Amino acid sequence: MLPAMTTDARSRRNYLPDERPPVDLAGIVRLRDFEAPARERIHPAAWAYYAGGGYDEHVLADTLAAWDAFRLRPRVLTGVTGIDATTTILGRPASLPIGIAPAALHGLAHREGELATARAATAAGAIHVVSTVASHTIEDVAAAAPGGRRWFQLYVQRERAVTRALVERAAAAGYEALCLTVDLPVLGYRDEVLRLHFDPGADAYANLPRRDVWRPDADLDEMVDMRSVELTWNDLDEIRSWAPIPLVLKGILTAEDARLAVEHGADAVWVSNHGGRQLDRVAAGIDVLEGIVDAVEGRAEVYLDGGIRRAPEILPAPALGARAVFTARPFLWALACAGEAGVTHGFGILREELERGLALMGTPTPASLTRGHVTRVRGA
Amino acid sequence: MLPAMTTDARSRRNYLPDERPPVDLAGIVRLRDFEAPARERIHPAAWAYYAGGGYDEHVLADTLAAWDAFRLRPRVLTGVTGIDATTTILGRPASLPIGIAPAALHGLAHREGELATARAATAAGAIHVVSTVASHTIEDVAAAAPGGRRWFQLYVQRERAVTRALVERAAAAGYEALCLTVDLPVLGYRDEVLRLHFDPGADAYANLPRRDVWRPDADLDEMVDMRSVELTWNDLDEIRSWAPIPLVLKGILTAEDARLAVEHGADAVWVSNHGGRQLDRVAAGIDVLEGIVDAVEGRAEVYLDGGIRRAPEILPAPALGARAVFTARPFLWALACAGEAGVTHGFGILREELERGLALMGTPTPASLTRGHVTRVRGA
Amino acid sequence: MLPAMTTDARSRRNYLPDERPPVDLAGIVRLRDFEAPARERIHPAAWAYYAGGGYDEHVLADTLAAWDAFRLRPRVLTGVTGIDATTTILGRPASLPIGIAPAALHGLAHREGELATARAATAAGAIHVVSTVASHTIEDVAAAAPGGRRWFQLYVQRERAVTRALVERAAAAGYEALCLTVDLPVLGYRDEVLRLHFDPGADAYANLPRRDVWRPDADLDEMVDMRSVELTWNDLDEIRSWAPIPLVLKGILTAEDARLAVEHGADAVWVSNHGGRQLDRVAAGIDVLEGIVDAVEGRAEVYLDGGIRRAPEILPAPALGARAVFTARPFLWALACAGEAGVTHGFGILREELERGLALMGTPTPASLTRGHVTRVRGA
Amino acid sequence: MLPAMTTDARSRRNYLPDERPPVDLAGIVRLRDFEAPARERIHPAAWAYYAGGGYDEHVLADTLAAWDAFRLRPRVLTGVTGIDATTTILGRPASLPIGIAPAALHGLAHREGELATARAATAAGAIHVVSTVASHTIEDVAAAAPGGRRWFQLYVQRERAVTRALVERAAAAGYEALCLTVDLPVLGYRDEVLRLHFDPGADAYANLPRRDVWRPDADLDEMVDMRSVELTWNDLDEIRSWAPIPLVLKGILTAEDARLAVEHGADAVWVSNHGGRQLDRVAAGIDVLEGIVDAVEGRAEVYLDGGIRRAPEILPAPALGARAVFTARPFLWALACAGEAGVTHGFGILREELERGLALMGTPTPASLTRGHVTRVRGA
Repeated sequence: MLPAMTTDARSRRNYLPDERPPVDLAGIVRLRDFEAPARERIHPAAWAYYAGGGYDEHVLADTLAAWDAFRLRPRVLTGVTGIDATTTILGRPASLPIGIAPAALHGLAHREGELATARAATAAGAIHVVSTVASHTIEDVAAAAPGGRRWFQLYVQRERAVTRALVERAAAAGYEALCLTVDLPVLGYRDEVLRLHFDPGADAYANLPRRDVWRPDADLDEMVDMRSVELTWNDLDEIRSWAPIPLVLKGILTAEDARLAVEHGADAVWVSNHGGRQLDRVAAGIDVLEGIVDAVEGRAEVYLDGGIRRAPEILPAPALGARAVFTARPFLWALACAGEAGVTHGFGILREELERGLALMGTPTPASLTRGHVTRVRGA
Repeated sequence: MLPAMTTDARSRRNYLPDERPPVDLAGIVRLRDFEAPARERIHPAAWAYYAGGGYDEHVLADTLAAWDAFRLRPRVLTGVTGIDATTTILGRPASLPIGIAPAALHGLAHREGELATARAATAAGAIHVVSTVASHTIEDVAAAAPGGRRWFQLYVQRERAVTRALVERAAAAGYEALCLTVDLPVLGYRDEVLRLHFDPGADAYANLPRRDVWRPDADLDEMVDMRSVELTWNDLDEIRSWAPIPLVLKGILTAEDARLAVEHGADAVWVSNHGGRQLDRVAAGIDVLEGIVDAVEGRAEVYLDGGIRRAPEILPAPALGARAVFTARPFLWALACAGEAGVTHGFGILREELERGLALMGTPTPASLTRGHVTRVRGA
Repeated sequence: MLPAMTTDARSRRNYLPDERPPVDLAGIVRLRDFEAPARERIHPAAWAYYAGGGYDEHVLADTLAAWDAFRLRPRVLTGVTGIDATTTILGRPASLPIGIAPAALHGLAHREGELATARAATAAGAIHVVSTVASHTIEDVAAAAPGGRRWFQLYVQRERAVTRALVERAAAAGYEALCLTVDLPVLGYRDEVLRLHFDPGADAYANLPRRDVWRPDADLDEMVDMRSVELTWNDLDEIRSWAPIPLVLKGILTAEDARLAVEHGADAVWVSNHGGRQLDRVAAGIDVLEGIVDAVEGRAEVYLDGGIRRAPEILPAPALGARAVFTARPFLWALACAGEAGVTHGFGILREELERGLALMGTPTPASLTRGHVTRVRGA
Repeated sequence: MLPAMTTDARSRRNYLPDERPPVDLAGIVRLRDFEAPARERIHPAAWAYYAGGGYDEHVLADTLAAWDAFRLRPRVLTGVTGIDATTTILGRPASLPIGIAPAALHGLAHREGELATARAATAAGAIHVVSTVASHTIEDVAAAAPGGRRWFQLYVQRERAVTRALVERAAAAGYEALCLTVDLPVLGYRDEVLRLHFDPGADAYANLPRRDVWRPDADLDEMVDMRSVELTWNDLDEIRSWAPIPLVLKGILTAEDARLAVEHGADAVWVSNHGGRQLDRVAAGIDVLEGIVDAVEGRAEVYLDGGIRRAPEILPAPALGARAVFTARPFLWALACAGEAGVTHGFGILREELERGLALMGTPTPASLTRGHVTRVRGA
C-alpha cells in the first residue's frame, strides 16, 4: 500500500488545458521553445504527470545529458547535393527518421488531443504511435487523418479479453504495427503522481472501460491502472495471433533482451527507458544503443527514444544503427502551444535541423551515416 | 588539545526536540520528504550532530553521489508474479533487506527515542541496530517491542568491564547479534561538534555511566567519549567470549580488512564509512562493495550502508553481493516528524519502492539479482 | 523552409555599432577584458551573430572547456635567454604563432572594420585572414596596411564566376594564401540568427553583389547567402588554377579528411569547428589536433582555432604539432572597444603572455615545444 | 611591455593591514575559518597579490580540487596506540610533516610579519621557510625565534653578488637549508597584480636593495623584480659553493626534472606549482607526486605543496612517498587574524587533525603510511 495522499487535488479533476490563444509560432525556432509556453497552458497536475520521472529522476536528467559523451565526426567536401531525410521503416517509406513516441492523454495538452497530433504527423509524413491510454478512441484518431502511418502502442491489460479487443480494433482501423510496451510490468514510482493523487477522471481513457479509480488509499497501479507483471516472452505468440501486423517491443535496455526479442520474432526492438518514468538509475538509450544493435545483428529494426530534442541528437542514432528515433514530450509541448499547427511547426523545425545537419555531416541521407561518423569521449 | 570552544551553546544543553504536532504523513512520498520538517523539529545542535561529517565532508557528499556511477540493467518479460522483498539475514528471515543502522541518541529526534524506533522496526519486520550511545537502555528498547529483530552496536569503552557489561546485557535482553564498530579508534574531526562544543547532558547516554564532560578545553574524545584506539584483531576472541551471539564488524572499507575479518571469525562484514562522520576522503561503501564481496568469498555475510535513500540505491547492493543494506539518518528524520508512525510510514515507502523496483528489474526477490543486473559507468 | 520569423528586427537593419569613446586600454590586461565593454558597443543583433553558435551551442561551450583536459609540463633551469615567439608560416616569418581568424563583417564591431584590423595586424607582424563576407573590399583592406601578411578566406559562391573573381582579386591585391572554408556546405542552424531574422542590409558585404535578402520566409541560406553544398575534393584543382598562391583548407575535424587534404595538394590543414557555429556536438579542435597532425605526417602545415584566449591555450598547440593558432572573437571585441588601438593592445597582451609562457615552459621558441611538454588528463 | 596600468592604486602604496583586534580563536576549528576574517584585515591589493594565480587561475582551482581524485584506504583494528606525528626531514626531527611554505611579505598580513610567523613555527616545532622577499631581514627573523628549524628560500637576483650575499647571510644566521625556487625564470602573468599596478613601496623587501619600481609602463618583472631566466642546472654548483647547507629545489613538476635534480646533487625535490601563481594549466603537485617519487628512487627527499588545508590532504602525501608537505596561504590568513597566536592556533588544529587522521587510518606515524593506504579514482 502506498502512502495515503492528500485530497485537495480532487477538486481539479480532469485537468483540462486552459483556453488561451495559440502561441505565435514565428518565435519558435527549436522544439525547446515550446516548453515554457506549454507549461502555462497545461494544468499543473497534467504537467507534473507529463514531465515527471521515476523515483528521484536521475535518469530523466541523465538521458538529456547522455549525448554529451558523443561527438559527431563531420566529413567535408563530399558534395552532398540531394539531401534526403526520408528513410524506410518496417518496409515502408517515412519522410523522416523521427516519429512521435506514445504518450498518454494528449487531451491534457490540447482539447483536440490525438486528433490534432494525427493530422500533423500525417501531413509531415511521420509515424505517430498512439497510446493505449489516449484521450481519443483508436478509431477516431485513425479517422482524423486517413492515410497516415500509425502504430498502436499496447499496454497489456489485466483482462486478456480487453487487451485482445484493443489489438483487434487497432488492426481493423489500419494501424500498421503493434508497439508492445515491455518495461511496465508495474508503474514506476512517481513522486508527483502520488503527491497529486493523479486522477484525470473516470472517462479520461477513451479506449478503456469507464472506471472511477479514486480511493484515499489507492496505489499507483490503481490510479493509473497499468500493470502487466505476469507477461512473459511466451505470451508474444498469442498477442501476435490476434492481428497480422508487425510487432515492435518497446522498452529494451539490454543486449540480452534484444537477443531474446529477435528470437521471439519481434520485428523491431525499441531502445527506451520510458522517458525516465519507470525505474531510475537505468541507462539512457543512446548509451546502450550500439551494444543492442550488435546483439540484433540486423535481424530486426532498432529504434531509439530518450532525450532527443534537436538534430545533433538524432544524427548519432542512425550512425550507430538505429533505423528511427522517437520523441514524445516536445510534441506534447507543441500540441499545447498551438494544436495541430504547433505539431506541424515542430516537424518543420526538425526537418530543417536534420537536413541541414545531414549536409554538415557530409552525408546525403540518414542511411549514409556510419559508425565512423560518431565517436564517444567517455565510457558508457 | 583541540581549540577552545565558545560557551554560548552551553545554555542549550540537552538539545531536546520541540513539541510540535506530528507531520501529516499524507504528503510524504519518499524518505527525503522527512528531512525538511525534521530539521524544524530537531534542536540545531542535535541537527548539526546528526547531519555532520568528518573534516570537510567530502565523503558525505561523495557517498550520496557514488550511485551515479552505477546503472541498473532491468530485464523485461520475465513474468515476475509473486514479488517478495523478504530475505534471510544471519540465518533468520527478515521482511526487507533494509535495516536501521545504528545512530546515537534517538532521543534528540523524538522524546520516545529508540522505543518508538524499535516498535516501528518490529512492526515492519526489519532489523533495528541499537547504538551503545542510545537514549534508552538496552533493556527498555527490548521491552518496548518484544519479538523484533534487534542487534546491539558496540563501541568498546575505555574500561573493559564496562564494555563487557554492555555485551552481556544485550545478549541477556535478546539482542541477536553484536555489531562491533571498528572504524572509530578515535572520533572523526567534526567541525560542527567543535563549534557547538556538543554536550547533550550528563545523563544523555542511558547505557553508560553518568558523566559531565564539559570543560572549556575538552577535546572531541572527551565531549563524545568514544575511543577504542587500542583495539586489535586479537581482541575479537575475548569480546566473542562474553556472549554467544554472532559478531558483525561494522566499518570496513578494504578487501584486506574484509579478509582479516573472515579469518578472525566474523559472521558478517559491514561495509561503511560511518555516515561520512569519521575520516574524510575515504571511499563510499558502494564503490568498494564488489571488491569486498570478492574477498569474503561467501565466508561471511556482507552488508552496506551509506547514502541509501530510495530503492534504486538499494537494488545494486544485493546485485553486487550484499545481503542487506542499512540506513540511519532517514529514520531519524522520520522519527522526528511523527515518532513511531513516522518510522512505520518510512518503512512503508521503502517497501513500496523496493517491491516496485524488483518488478521493474524483472526479478521477484533480492536474491534473484545478480551482477549482470548492474553495471558501472565510471571507474571506482 | 525555416519557420517564419518576426519582423520587429527589420527596423534595426545595418546593425551599426554605437559611437561611444574608446575603452581605456589601461584596464585591459587579458583579451577577455574586452568582452563586456564590446558588448555594450555592438548592436544586439550583431552581438548575437558574432557570439552565437550552431543548434544548442554545446560545442561552443565545449571548445572553451576542452583545454581543461590538458596539462602543460614546464621544464626548469633550462636557461631560456633569448625568448623568441616568432615562427615561420607557409615559408615566411611571422612575429607570432597567432593570427586573426576570418570573421564576417568587422564593420559591425567598428566603423573602420577590417581596415583597422589590418593596420593592427600588420603592425603586430601577425597574419590577418580576411573573410569573403568582410565589410570592406579586398582591395581596400590591402591598401589600408601595405606590407602586412594577409590571407583571403574564401566562401565558394553559388556562381562559379563570382567565386573566381574573388580569388583573382585577392591574388592581385597581394593576399598570400587562399583559405578555403570547407565546413560550410550550408550554414549551421543558428537560433539567434533566426530569431532576429538577421539581415545587415543589402550593401553589408562589400565583396559580393548587392542584394536584398529579406523575405518573411527566408531561410538561413537566403539570409546569410553562404552555401557550397556541391563542393568536392575534385574542385580544388580548379580553384587552385585561378591563382598561384598556397591553399589552406579550413574546417577539418577528422584524420581521414586531413589525409585527403594532403593527397589533394593542400598546403595547410586548418583544424576548426568554425567557432562552434556550424554543426553542434562535434569535437573541439584541440581534442583532435594530435590525430590530425599524425595523419598529415608533416606533408602540410597544421593550424588550429577554437577557444584560444590566452597563452596557456596557445602553448599546447605547437607542442602537439600545430604551426599556428588563430582566434577571431577576441579581436572583434578589441576592435569594438578601441578600433585599431584595441587590436594592437590585444596583440601586445598576447605577445606578453606568450613570451612569459615560453619562459615558464623553459622553451625559448614555439618550435622548441614538443609532445613531452603537454599531457592529457582525460580521454578525448 | 605590458599594458599600461591605471594609477589610482598609487595612493594606497604600502598596503599595510588594518589594526583591528585579533580574531577570537575559539571559533576557528579549521584553517579555512581564518580566510574570511583575514580578508577583512588585509589590504585589498595585498589580498589580491596573496590570493591570485597565474593567467586564468585554472590551476589555482584545480590544485584544490585535485584531491578529489584520491581515496584514503583506512585500516581497522590495528591498535594504533602511541600516535606520533613527528618525522625526520633532512636528517633532523620535525614535530610535524607540515611546514610553512615560503610566501612574500608577511608584513602585509600582520605588522610583525615573519617575526611572528617564526615564533609560532618554532613553538610548534615545524619548519619555516623564509622568503627572499620577506618583510623582515634574514637576521631579524632568525633572532626572533632562536632554535627554530628555518630554511631560506632563494630567488636568484639579476646580480650574482646580491644573490651570493643572501645565501651567505642565511647560512650565517643559522638557516639550515637553501630552498632554491626554480619555477620563476620570470614572474607568471598575474592579472590582479597588473590591474592594481602592485607596488608595496620602495622599502617593502627587507633583504633587497631599496628601489622605487613604479613607472606607468612598468612590466611585471619590474614591479616584482624577480627574474632568473638565465639560470641552468650548471649554476647549482656555484650556488652550493657559497654555503655548506643542503639544497632543496622547489618548483618541479616533471619526473624528468626530478631526475636531473638528483643528478645535480639536490638534497630534496619540492613538487610545487608555486601556489598556482606561475604558469596556468600545469599539474597539481599531488597529481604528479607518485611519478616524481618513482623517478627520485629515494636518492633525495621529496616534498609537496599545493592545496593542502586539512589532514585528509596531508595523509596521501607520505603514503605516496613525500617526506613533508608545506602550505603558505592558510598561515598568512592565520597571521592576519591573530599574529603569532593565530599561527600557533593553526598548527594546533593541523596537529589535532593529523593525529586524529593517523589514528583513523590505523597508522601510528606518517612513515607507516604506504601506497596501499591511498588509491586514485580518476586518471591523472
